[in-house]
Amino acid sequence: MLDTEHDDYSDGDVDIIGKAVYKHIQFNGTEGLTENQLAAAESYYDNYLDQPFFELSTVWVLLCAFLVFIMHLGFASIESGMCQRKNTVNILFKNVFIICSGLLLYGVYGFNSMYPTEAGATTILEGIFSFGKPISESINAGNDLSYGGTGLCQTGWADFIFQAMFAATAATIVSGAVAERVKLSSFMIFAVLLVGFAYPITGGWKWGGGVLDGMGFYDFAGSSVVHAFGGFAALACVLILGPRKGKYTANGVKPILPSNLPLANIGALLLWFGWFGFNCGSVLSADPEGISYVAITTSFGAASGGLAAILVSWIILKKPDLSMALNGILAGLVGITAGADQLSLLGACLAGGVGGGLVVVAVMFFDKLKIDDPVGAISVHGVCGIWGTLAVGLPFLCKEGAGSSFFVQLAGTAAIGAFAFAFSFIVFYIIKLVMGVRVDESEEAEGLDVAEHGAPAYNE
Amino acid sequence: MLDTEHDDYSDGDVDIIGKAVYKHIQFNGTEGLTENQLAAAESYYDNYLDQPFFELSTVWVLLCAFLVFIMHLGFASIESGMCQRKNTVNILFKNVFIICSGLLLYGVYGFNSMYPTEAGATTILEGIFSFGKPISESINAGNDLSYGGTGLCQTGWADFIFQAMFAATAATIVSGAVAERVKLSSFMIFAVLLVGFAYPITGGWKWGGGVLDGMGFYDFAGSSVVHAFGGFAALACVLILGPRKGKYTANGVKPILPSNLPLANIGALLLWFGWFGFNCGSVLSADPEGISYVAITTSFGAASGGLAAILVSWIILKKPDLSMALNGILAGLVGITAGADQLSLLGACLAGGVGGGLVVVAVMFFDKLKIDDPVGAISVHGVCGIWGTLAVGLPFLCKEGAGSSFFVQLAGTAAIGAFAFAFSFIVFYIIKLVMGVRVDESEEAEGLDVAEHGAPAYNE
Amino acid sequence: MLDTEHDDYSDGDVDIIGKAVYKHIQFNGTEGLTENQLAAAESYYDNYLDQPFFELSTVWVLLCAFLVFIMHLGFASIESGMCQRKNTVNILFKNVFIICSGLLLYGVYGFNSMYPTEAGATTILEGIFSFGKPISESINAGNDLSYGGTGLCQTGWADFIFQAMFAATAATIVSGAVAERVKLSSFMIFAVLLVGFAYPITGGWKWGGGVLDGMGFYDFAGSSVVHAFGGFAALACVLILGPRKGKYTANGVKPILPSNLPLANIGALLLWFGWFGFNCGSVLSADPEGISYVAITTSFGAASGGLAAILVSWIILKKPDLSMALNGILAGLVGITAGADQLSLLGACLAGGVGGGLVVVAVMFFDKLKIDDPVGAISVHGVCGIWGTLAVGLPFLCKEGAGSSFFVQLAGTAAIGAFAFAFSFIVFYIIKLVMGVRVDESEEAEGLDVAEHGAPAYNE
Repeated sequence: MLDTEHDDYSDGDVDIIGKAVYKHIQFNGTEGLTENQLAAAESYYDNYLDQPFFELSTVWVLLCAFLVFIMHLGFASIESGMCQRKNTVNILFKNVFIICSGLLLYGVYGFNSMYPTEAGATTILEGIFSFGKPISESINAGNDLSYGGTGLCQTGWADFIFQAMFAATAATIVSGAVAERVKLSSFMIFAVLLVGFAYPITGGWKWGGGVLDGMGFYDFAGSSVVHAFGGFAALACVLILGPRKGKYTANGVKPILPSNLPLANIGALLLWFGWFGFNCGSVLSADPEGISYVAITTSFGAASGGLAAILVSWIILKKPDLSMALNGILAGLVGITAGADQLSLLGACLAGGVGGGLVVVAVMFFDKLKIDDPVGAISVHGVCGIWGTLAVGLPFLCKEGAGSSFFVQLAGTAAIGAFAFAFSFIVFYIIKLVMGVRVDESEEAEGLDVAEHGAPAYNE
Repeated sequence: MLDTEHDDYSDGDVDIIGKAVYKHIQFNGTEGLTENQLAAAESYYDNYLDQPFFELSTVWVLLCAFLVFIMHLGFASIESGMCQRKNTVNILFKNVFIICSGLLLYGVYGFNSMYPTEAGATTILEGIFSFGKPISESINAGNDLSYGGTGLCQTGWADFIFQAMFAATAATIVSGAVAERVKLSSFMIFAVLLVGFAYPITGGWKWGGGVLDGMGFYDFAGSSVVHAFGGFAALACVLILGPRKGKYTANGVKPILPSNLPLANIGALLLWFGWFGFNCGSVLSADPEGISYVAITTSFGAASGGLAAILVSWIILKKPDLSMALNGILAGLVGITAGADQLSLLGACLAGGVGGGLVVVAVMFFDKLKIDDPVGAISVHGVCGIWGTLAVGLPFLCKEGAGSSFFVQLAGTAAIGAFAFAFSFIVFYIIKLVMGVRVDESEEAEGLDVAEHGAPAYNE
Repeated sequence: MLDTEHDDYSDGDVDIIGKAVYKHIQFNGTEGLTENQLAAAESYYDNYLDQPFFELSTVWVLLCAFLVFIMHLGFASIESGMCQRKNTVNILFKNVFIICSGLLLYGVYGFNSMYPTEAGATTILEGIFSFGKPISESINAGNDLSYGGTGLCQTGWADFIFQAMFAATAATIVSGAVAERVKLSSFMIFAVLLVGFAYPITGGWKWGGGVLDGMGFYDFAGSSVVHAFGGFAALACVLILGPRKGKYTANGVKPILPSNLPLANIGALLLWFGWFGFNCGSVLSADPEGISYVAITTSFGAASGGLAAILVSWIILKKPDLSMALNGILAGLVGITAGADQLSLLGACLAGGVGGGLVVVAVMFFDKLKIDDPVGAISVHGVCGIWGTLAVGLPFLCKEGAGSSFFVQLAGTAAIGAFAFAFSFIVFYIIKLVMGVRVDESEEAEGLDVAEHGAPAYNE
């Protein structure tokens, strides 16, 4: 029998004692045990009953984080495949820089700013803005359920890395829209500010328990928090930057063909692959029903988006367009993201399908306005991000008893989009004034790969 | 103490009560408890003992489904890499269309048709053909073990999405064989009918507990159900379609070189990566011995297939041939798939190795017959699908006490192959009569990318 | 009540009986039970309490093995993307051969040689060298905890496949360094000997509980065991092989441009993706704190390496260099690998960052010495492998109480590097004498794809 009289259980071995006492009770009953021993056993019982689920959920969230990581390869590949050959290196370089800097910035400032706790952040404006400290080793007190408890069924580390992989996505969205004419150093500064500073602000409004969360705004995995945010930041930058030379002529829009469609295809399907982590991981536990239902709505959204874009573009453009099909898949995924756990099966198909149709129209619409977005990022992430968010407010798309208020959804997505737009417009404009944001005309004509990086992407 | 006298446990909170009562029993014994309370505790105990395994298995099957999804990127990449540059967009477009339509069709009709239950399907011919209803939200009654019980250790959603990812594979196999001359719209109609209607029929014969399953036919992860099915469908289509212009000349076979071998390599290795999900997920639970043994046989089959193809092609062709090595890996994988849990370690190497050797000979054999299969799909999936199925009937390849009857295996794979061939021949022939299945000679010469899609895959 | 009087529990059903008795005890107490019954229940209780963690860990290690597998696609892609177009097929072929032969060799000999047990190996020199038998079906006695017990929380199969995926990595590292001029057959023989014979020796010194392990040498996931080993083997081969023709001219180093940077980018990011499995799987269980902390240090190491390489190369080369950024990420990953569980967060950033800076300088340094390494493998894996190993010996980089002795680390990495260098130098030199290791000048000029494989990688 363990000596519990002379041990106050303060040295961390309560679990070992509790485990032994609990086993004793199983086979010999409670007779003769001290109160301390009983308490240790009870504490052990309470903790360890949920331990397998805690461990499984940590594994799940980590694997989903790895899948979200691969989305960055997806973005790099689709963007470089969709753009001109002469700007390939530049696009890849921007994406590599963003994932590297985004992860570190999120550790140094973003995480604790977006999810403010008393220990990790200084609240400047309650529910609106907190100033976060760097994460530290104490984020996770151990293998037990102490971090977040059963409500957040994972270690703090798993939570951090999952959210950090999300953070860099926003700037990557912008990267595609400004491709082929943005000045590298200017974009790098902008991306750092967007990922490091702006994203955690609006992220905190919803996921950090801030003002939008308090209003009942619903955004399951980030149609607004990530995608509309990125799309509207992209719109602001594109407006400041202007279109690529020669795109909009007196005789109409000159199509600029994608340089490498197999590469774009790799990108789009890796994005779908990674999106399983993006959406299913946003359950934030391994809840079997939750994660498996979201896997289906995500798949149905993507598939419906792809088919709708094929159909709509075939009708309008009179040909089966692969670029549109790929963008349709992404549009379907963005469309399903806000309500992946709220929509019915049919609702998931409709949310994705409308997204896929919408993206074709939106791409043509922005071209009409001479807003030049080489990869269609504003349409995919901005327009469909709004749509996906609003879909959660349409009861006929949702499961019985699920969904949110349409007006709250509208207000929320408008607030996030407006902030992203305003922030980006101001910051990018200042950068323009200070150092310029666009390469020279000769550099643009030559291609950024040679002009900025000294060598092309493809060589003998 | 919970008021169990006034609660009949019909409102779903039995688990909460059961949990509380069970804990009470742990520390205070059963004295004074009512029969209702005891029953609740016992029910809780019975359910939750298997809960961690149920949750883990759901996670496992979902992750395997994601891996099977990435096989579609693998197929798209290897097919477009192996074909001519001028037909790249067309191949990618077909693959994107198949994964999108396949997933939805399997939800609307296939799943409940392949796995008929009283609630989900109308039986037309017992064990042969059922007419399925669309899946609905009630496929999964919750987080508990109610769907399939402990025998099917996962939610219905996870089961569906795993099977849905398989379904589209069959049509993708055909896509490679008919590449470079098939008419897009005709193929799209055919693919819809094959995935949506034909695949669930033969699938149900085995995995839906139908007639082949009753005979003791064994096909662990689908050497016949998926691969031979796809391979024989491909053979029928290729026979109707005829070879590419200029392939078979008076002076012999004119080799048509692969356009992009790094792309084909990405495709082949992603297929191997995805095959871990295909085979290990087919354990249909996270049974540690099952999934880890299958991971080894799958790896050994692929590796042996690759090495055997390298050796055989080096001997015959007098050079180390990368395309053959890649096809050898796939052939090894197809060869191991039917018996991944039945074969011994040495048997796994032999099953894969024979597959790898066979594929080299088969590719040359079909060329002799002027059956033109640009990517070798009939050889890889058809020929090696049969081989893999028969391997389970060869006792010296199997673990002690494992394996199946050779004649039953032969009958099963013949039945599935024959049905796939007959169905495809009839349907594709009708499509040929109605709208044609082949592009014009001038379009074939120009390439389908420009002819059907309006632009090439690679541009400046 | 089960008849326990007439059953001695020797037939494997002890768990079923134990389960039933244990449940009986839960609700009825122990009264009236026989000693046999009580023992069965207790054995059941002890075993199954850890069962969920055992099952989860097996799933985790398997998934990590799949991720390590994808690193081979990463290596193939980055190496072929970084080299000249005319040698692409050759590089891909070598990589495909290595993964296939490496897996089988590790099963036939490597595993039991590296992890010697009485049943599986003959000890030749205690702690230095054992001669292993092929793995057999008995590697895993079942689903219980019998293989390795709770200390090795997984089936033997999972353990094998994870380690087997590691084994082939070493030869793949060499493949990149000798690219563009090595004779295929000579390299294939060398690779077989390196993976099959040499790697398990030094691997056993540390991970097999050999002499370095006894000294307290620490190498969490293989900065030395895998990477420095591969890097120093590469150095030996390159010294024997000599530089590519025309690289080092009287007028200085002639840059040979990478043929396909999007392919290299795919390779580098897939390597990062796979490295999550490499490092997090090396926890060898699903310990939540362990795996999630390592996910962060791995990410921070990679990100810091990428940023440092960007910075350093921008300063030295005066341009933002994508190749250096990608190599910087890999250097950061190699730098974090030895101490991924020992370093502090800041230490992880520094270990990765120093690796990223180091790789730029090392690449230039080897070029100064006319040691021609087309992909920078010696710098990335050799130099940064040493650095990563030493980092664990620098207390200010480690978590409180973690880390190892600097001198032991130095001795360990020196021993492994020296053995790899000596083995490779001798073996490759003998191969050179017997059959030559380098292609003809004309073949080198024409490119190995046409010269050795009969056709180029890219065709119309």
